[in-house]
Amino acid sequence: MISVGIVGGTGYTGVELLRLLLLHEGVTVEAITSRSEAGRRVADLFPTLLGRTDLQFTDPDSGALDACDIVFFATPHNVAMHSVGAFLDRGQRVIDLSADFRLQDVALWEQWYGEAHVAPDLIPQAVYGLPEVNRDAIASAQLVAAPGCYPTSIQLGFLPLLQAGVIDPKRLIASSASGVSGAGRQAKIDHLLTEAGESFKAYGVSGHRHLPEIEQGLAAIAEQPVQLTFVPHLAPMSRGIHSTLFAHLSASNVDLQDLFEATYTDEPFVGVMPSGQYPQTRTVRGANHCQIAVTQPQGRSEVVVTVAIDNLVKGASGQAVQIMNIMLGLPESSGLDVIGLIP
Amino acid sequence: MISVGIVGGTGYTGVELLRLLLLHEGVTVEAITSRSEAGRRVADLFPTLLGRTDLQFTDPDSGALDACDIVFFATPHNVAMHSVGAFLDRGQRVIDLSADFRLQDVALWEQWYGEAHVAPDLIPQAVYGLPEVNRDAIASAQLVAAPGCYPTSIQLGFLPLLQAGVIDPKRLIASSASGVSGAGRQAKIDHLLTEAGESFKAYGVSGHRHLPEIEQGLAAIAEQPVQLTFVPHLAPMSRGIHSTLFAHLSASNVDLQDLFEATYTDEPFVGVMPSGQYPQTRTVRGANHCQIAVTQPQGRSEVVVTVAIDNLVKGASGQAVQIMNIMLGLPESSGLDVIGLIP
Amino acid sequence: MISVGIVGGTGYTGVELLRLLLLHEGVTVEAITSRSEAGRRVADLFPTLLGRTDLQFTDPDSGALDACDIVFFATPHNVAMHSVGAFLDRGQRVIDLSADFRLQDVALWEQWYGEAHVAPDLIPQAVYGLPEVNRDAIASAQLVAAPGCYPTSIQLGFLPLLQAGVIDPKRLIASSASGVSGAGRQAKIDHLLTEAGESFKAYGVSGHRHLPEIEQGLAAIAEQPVQLTFVPHLAPMSRGIHSTLFAHLSASNVDLQDLFEATYTDEPFVGVMPSGQYPQTRTVRGANHCQIAVTQPQGRSEVVVTVAIDNLVKGASGQAVQIMNIMLGLPESSGLDVIGLIP
Amino acid sequence: MISVGIVGGTGYTGVELLRLLLLHEGVTVEAITSRSEAGRRVADLFPTLLGRTDLQFTDPDSGALDACDIVFFATPHNVAMHSVGAFLDRGQRVIDLSADFRLQDVALWEQWYGEAHVAPDLIPQAVYGLPEVNRDAIASAQLVAAPGCYPTSIQLGFLPLLQAGVIDPKRLIASSASGVSGAGRQAKIDHLLTEAGESFKAYGVSGHRHLPEIEQGLAAIAEQPVQLTFVPHLAPMSRGIHSTLFAHLSASNVDLQDLFEATYTDEPFVGVMPSGQYPQTRTVRGANHCQIAVTQPQGRSEVVVTVAIDNLVKGASGQAVQIMNIMLGLPESSGLDVIGLIP
Repeated sequence: MISVGIVGGTGYTGVELLRLLLLHEGVTVEAITSRSEAGRRVADLFPTLLGRTDLQFTDPDSGALDACDIVFFATPHNVAMHSVGAFLDRGQRVIDLSADFRLQDVALWEQWYGEAHVAPDLIPQAVYGLPEVNRDAIASAQLVAAPGCYPTSIQLGFLPLLQAGVIDPKRLIASSASGVSGAGRQAKIDHLLTEAGESFKAYGVSGHRHLPEIEQGLAAIAEQPVQLTFVPHLAPMSRGIHSTLFAHLSASNVDLQDLFEATYTDEPFVGVMPSGQYPQTRTVRGANHCQIAVTQPQGRSEVVVTVAIDNLVKGASGQAVQIMNIMLGLPESSGLDVIGLIP
Repeated sequence: MISVGIVGGTGYTGVELLRLLLLHEGVTVEAITSRSEAGRRVADLFPTLLGRTDLQFTDPDSGALDACDIVFFATPHNVAMHSVGAFLDRGQRVIDLSADFRLQDVALWEQWYGEAHVAPDLIPQAVYGLPEVNRDAIASAQLVAAPGCYPTSIQLGFLPLLQAGVIDPKRLIASSASGVSGAGRQAKIDHLLTEAGESFKAYGVSGHRHLPEIEQGLAAIAEQPVQLTFVPHLAPMSRGIHSTLFAHLSASNVDLQDLFEATYTDEPFVGVMPSGQYPQTRTVRGANHCQIAVTQPQGRSEVVVTVAIDNLVKGASGQAVQIMNIMLGLPESSGLDVIGLIP
Repeated sequence: MISVGIVGGTGYTGVELLRLLLLHEGVTVEAITSRSEAGRRVADLFPTLLGRTDLQFTDPDSGALDACDIVFFATPHNVAMHSVGAFLDRGQRVIDLSADFRLQDVALWEQWYGEAHVAPDLIPQAVYGLPEVNRDAIASAQLVAAPGCYPTSIQLGFLPLLQAGVIDPKRLIASSASGVSGAGRQAKIDHLLTEAGESFKAYGVSGHRHLPEIEQGLAAIAEQPVQLTFVPHLAPMSRGIHSTLFAHLSASNVDLQDLFEATYTDEPFVGVMPSGQYPQTRTVRGANHCQIAVTQPQGRSEVVVTVAIDNLVKGASGQAVQIMNIMLGLPESSGLDVIGLIP
Repeated sequence: MISVGIVGGTGYTGVELLRLLLLHEGVTVEAITSRSEAGRRVADLFPTLLGRTDLQFTDPDSGALDACDIVFFATPHNVAMHSVGAFLDRGQRVIDLSADFRLQDVALWEQWYGEAHVAPDLIPQAVYGLPEVNRDAIASAQLVAAPGCYPTSIQLGFLPLLQAGVIDPKRLIASSASGVSGAGRQAKIDHLLTEAGESFKAYGVSGHRHLPEIEQGLAAIAEQPVQLTFVPHLAPMSRGIHSTLFAHLSASNVDLQDLFEATYTDEPFVGVMPSGQYPQTRTVRGANHCQIAVTQPQGRSEVVVTVAIDNLVKGASGQAVQIMNIMLGLPESSGLDVIGLIP
């Protein structure tokens, strides 16, 4: 049995990892750490786990994770880069859900995160963990940077168009909406039900940290530089990311529906909607699924792609489990056969 | 492999049954019927199932259910009583999620449902399917009436007190709140997001159809007549039932926390909260779990019990699967090891 | 023109006072204080006021309030009692929306609030500001303690029954649900949309600070001791309080609908629903209105009263304006002719 | 006193008109019609009006509207065009909130609405009622077509850029999100809380009926043809429209913030956010206000405008009252000094 551990288990990606890993038949959760909650029963903090686990939070310095085959970092950015090296040195494999190793360009990382990167030497070996793009590299990686939630939805939406070379890569637009859980489990007035409920707003319009990650990923897919205008929004819901993508068609007579279906036909976690149907965040809630629709309104030259994922599953913890399955050579959907929860 | 079928699959209990049964390793879903949607792919109506099943709705008269070992009725009241008899005659076993066979008193049923019961002869053999009360009878039953959502929460909350005989059974009060899915997947103005959202109201105060079912169940537990004042409310959420129960203590020096923990210690799907913690509907969302807390405010003689379930799981489809497991002699939690979805 | 000021303007009751007072033709808002936001434009914090006011927050020690005829305290408990005295000494009149002067029994206050009361000498002159009970005393008061939100709904619901002497005052039960704004504009994890959304829970079951206030008020109405079991709940919405009240009828042949309509026939802000209709929080949202229905289920001896108010209006700031109107001899509905906002 | 009437008062725009008009000091609501609810008290259907009005719904054929100075049509499309003529013939003035007279091109109307227009002769005299564009024409019009909700937000957002000629009018993109009330008060499964709650989706991507209206309006502003890609979304909230607009700058060195502030400096109902702040639908809820922010991300050549309105106020009924004020020569903000409701 494979043993896994989680660093930073008090946030939403942490409890979501637990939801998936506790039912995963191929692994055992050995330890989950939290500096602030050390000694507390996990089920006490997250009552969904009452009767499902006896795990307690342990101190990250306790050594409890040292024997784990796989270590997940479910921490805010700027934590993993301080301690990933020690795990790698012991030969352990690491899946980092934070932003620390997503950008290959250290200077770009430091510009957007406003501080020095303390482990730049590890960046070159970090594999960007979008399975639909990097499956082979993930399989053999020791350190995987799991993609962000917005980036997952936007890359999977543009991918068929960029791979086929049918759009202008310099004029990409993404208008995305996220549920409030994307902001994490932190006490902020802006995310109170009384502030975020019954409201919709854009934020970070002048620049969001996911922009360089997305542009890096899209450029890799397109094999040329790209330019993206990205506007994230906060929607009055708990879970879900919906991205609406706009691009200018540079080719004509492309059967877009066929293109998307062909691109994703073998992907277990990407579904192309039947023509005329659009994805909703509710139909992927709780599931490691990305649903996509492509439309060419009025037959004009602008193509519209709409994409829905659960930000905590395919946008974070579910994708991390998918990455783990690939790294371990397990069936890719092990522990991920969860069906979305409606209504 | 056991084969099961679902009558009336276009509602919320239907799709919830599918969510649970499609992942249940002991059974195969053979057919799901709908008169109005016959021929349509189930995943077309419920996109959570895209890529998870090729099932199509079939006409209830097609005979597709005739070979099923277990047939679930996920229909509104007044449907099952017309056709259950034929299934029973063929030796099939039936779990009815509707109200048709919940009341043993035919006259009472006819009074509350405003029409004649067409299968009164089948009522005596119908077992009321609350596992925590009737587990043995369920195991051998051919026809089980799965309890309603409010009744499940209220009976499980009062049960320890009534069994121990420590409250006055003539002065019971239940103030319950339900998510909107309790009203089913029907086009009604009252249940639009614009009407039911951001609002809270009581309804059916002068009399709700679940009242006689609850009083029947409580009387059976208490082994004496009971009287309940029951006020249901509509809460601005999709899933969940929360019941707040009030009773007058007729005994003193009862350790209520001990009583509740002892009563439910062996129950796989009932959890007693640690003292000082209260259940929330969000921590049982999607799970076949009932969480209960008991309190004696200010040490006065009024006891307060709070109970949370997911109305579509422990209050309907999850409980129906639990019933099925008991009927089939399977481990009671087969297919029900789903962990609740937070946030 | 009457000048008014607000102490503690960064919370929800503060901005709600501004919404009402800025449109009130009989008064001018002279100043609004906040220690933390001093110097900031109010409309910058609350963009609903963009273009509607040039007010800036001022420091509470700036003396800006010293010339106001009326001073509102929209502060958390334990603030007003430190500085109300100085205002009273200058001959100003004070409406305190906090809990500091609601309880006449100092020891009881200190027991529930866990600290010493620093202005016990002012308590005797504080008038409890429920207009429907204390209108005359309010008119001539210098210091008014505006009632809490739960207490307003519960007292108005029980009042007709207690005044008429038709229920047992020792067996009162209130099951109330509040929107999240009742918890104020404070950064707490429990009140994030991701925690409080799509969920319902009881809290403070073992004892809520509003209990002694309610019991004090009900005893005054009943002119005898009362005993109340009070369970508050958190509902997944921003605004609104709904109280469901249970009492045992001690008289028979009472026409409850008549009793309620007669009691409130002259009250401008209490409406009795037509028989068979129940109040909803959405139909009083934004309005200084209390809607009430009374029911006697199945003709049994338990009476059920349901009450809806907007916790920030009739439960706080609207009621404070109503109190001010009474104190100033203005028409009681001046500035309060706001119609609720649906949907 | 001016007398006004409302045709079709059972929908959300109808009750919203009542909320505003009943408090408008310059007009009296003479009659409100509804074929289905004739004879019923308006407050019975909309309890927010309990105690505020004794109006009853009257049959549209009763003649009750014949003496009104102004008649509002708050009907679905395809109703007003059948009866507006008779009102105009009597010399009455009409404000139509529906789509019947918004498009000047009859053929285009018939293409998008799928039926023949029955009053094409009235179209030329219909004034498109966006005050910020057509104030003078509105003042003297007999028939005004009030703009749609999406069109209002999108036109006001692009207006400064198009008037200044600084963007490419052939590459306009609008990604808009609407609350569910935009779909009206109609019983549809898609708009149940259980379906529309906690979810976000695009709809009508291949073509929405507001597209030709918006393109017509933008072309009039730009004084040249335009091309817009418009994607509407459904957000899980009751009220509010948020539009995120993208355009390609054709000029450099434009101070966009200055441009927007200068354009709207005299407009009573359009506010430009301070630089770095973005509008939210919650801060205009219930108010006849449009809040706008303009951003040029990373100094690149794509400009982003975000716009928030309340779809039922500035997007419908509030704007209709604003139009009425202009037609009657009243102060434009009469009856519209309502402050938004937060939280």
